[in-house]
Amino acid sequence: MQIIPIHVEKEIEPIDDISDIILKSEKLNDGDILVIAQKIISKQEGRLIDLSDISPSLLAEGISSHYQKDPKIVELILSESKRIVRMFNGILIVETHHGFICANAGVDESNIQKGFATILPLNSDESAQKIQNKILEQSGKNIAVIISDTFGRPFRMGQTNHAIGISGLNPILDYEGTLDSFDKILHVTAIAIADELSSASELVMGKSLKCPIAIIRDYSFESENHSIDDLIRPEHEDLFR
Amino acid sequence: MQIIPIHVEKEIEPIDDISDIILKSEKLNDGDILVIAQKIISKQEGRLIDLSDISPSLLAEGISSHYQKDPKIVELILSESKRIVRMFNGILIVETHHGFICANAGVDESNIQKGFATILPLNSDESAQKIQNKILEQSGKNIAVIISDTFGRPFRMGQTNHAIGISGLNPILDYEGTLDSFDKILHVTAIAIADELSSASELVMGKSLKCPIAIIRDYSFESENHSIDDLIRPEHEDLFR
Repeated sequence: MQIIPIHVEKEIEPIDDISDIILKSEKLNDGDILVIAQKIISKQEGRLIDLSDISPSLLAEGISSHYQKDPKIVELILSESKRIVRMFNGILIVETHHGFICANAGVDESNIQKGFATILPLNSDESAQKIQNKILEQSGKNIAVIISDTFGRPFRMGQTNHAIGISGLNPILDYEGTLDSFDKILHVTAIAIADELSSASELVMGKSLKCPIAIIRDYSFESENHSIDDLIRPEHEDLFR
Repeated sequence: MQIIPIHVEKEIEPIDDISDIILKSEKLNDGDILVIAQKIISKQEGRLIDLSDISPSLLAEGISSHYQKDPKIVELILSESKRIVRMFNGILIVETHHGFICANAGVDESNIQKGFATILPLNSDESAQKIQNKILEQSGKNIAVIISDTFGRPFRMGQTNHAIGISGLNPILDYEGTLDSFDKILHVTAIAIADELSSASELVMGKSLKCPIAIIRDYSFESENHSIDDLIRPEHEDLFR
């Protein structure tokens, strides 16, 4: 298995075509998986907020003053959230409208001009599918696409990349009912390969955004269509919400 | 970056030398990272429990009867645990003596003969270091070693591989204070690369244990010595315990 970084020197804008940029950088093979950092998808889709346009609510003002945060950023986080899951030491863990549990609802001031923040794509499955379709049209190559973002995790230090949108692959590899090396039936083993592929790609991406795309080659996967919802644990099954 | 699987056809026993097996299978380069599945380390270290030797406590009997589990397995889980973090629908989420929060304390009946279970290595950092040192002695190659295991996560469906022992690498890549693409200082970005490397390797390992080792090549990392404790979030900073 290989992970090939794609360098993108230009700042992505709504006028850019990400599939074009990919096809001009690297020859794709059938069965490749493209992992793309959320940040450039958000920029291409214009998911950029001018913080000077935001009027903080009283709740945002209250949270900000208590935790010494920027009230406009807090307001933006709240507007991107379904609910607050935990609030502690100035960290807001929320459930986004998509159902992701993460810090700050994906609102991010890094790798963007001062005074602006990016927010997550509205529907990252659709963003992934558009790129998959365009690449098929333009090059005839059947590939899969994952949009990934960097999230923290409970219990463990440090962040890792997770999938927030997919197209053309089953994000879960389920071993239920297959045999182990002693020919006993395996139970309750289902691997979140879309998250593992996202994590693997992060290793070549880094954080300065010079390399927001990676190609994963020579990895076999089920190429049916699925939704990122397959990776979101339903609330009634979740022991930690 | 490349991920190269190492196939191991034989069943690992305490008499086997894992570094020997690796060196006979694949030529290593300086700077390679070996990721090794916990299961073969446990087998090599004799961390195998004959379930017929276990006498369940009253607590284990109680939990087992409530959740219809095997009382001997529950007793083994409890003996590997510092405390129970959550108990729900027959799933025991515990804190192991090492400090890992995971289901069933790493007690595992898969890929082992019926009537036995494997438990986690006593000290996976030491297990990793032994293999790192032996490979340096035998081949002159400077490598890093990660021992990995498959854990579930809150909020997300499916399991991913995590590091449980490391030797010869810093498990966290800290971007604090570096510049983003707009020359602004990056804050609070620290990537748990040891977990990402474990996840990446799982993609070539699969679950039948025919391929319990992977080599990660062409990935740059800080080769200082660290402990897996760097990846365990201290309880007072953890919002979800």
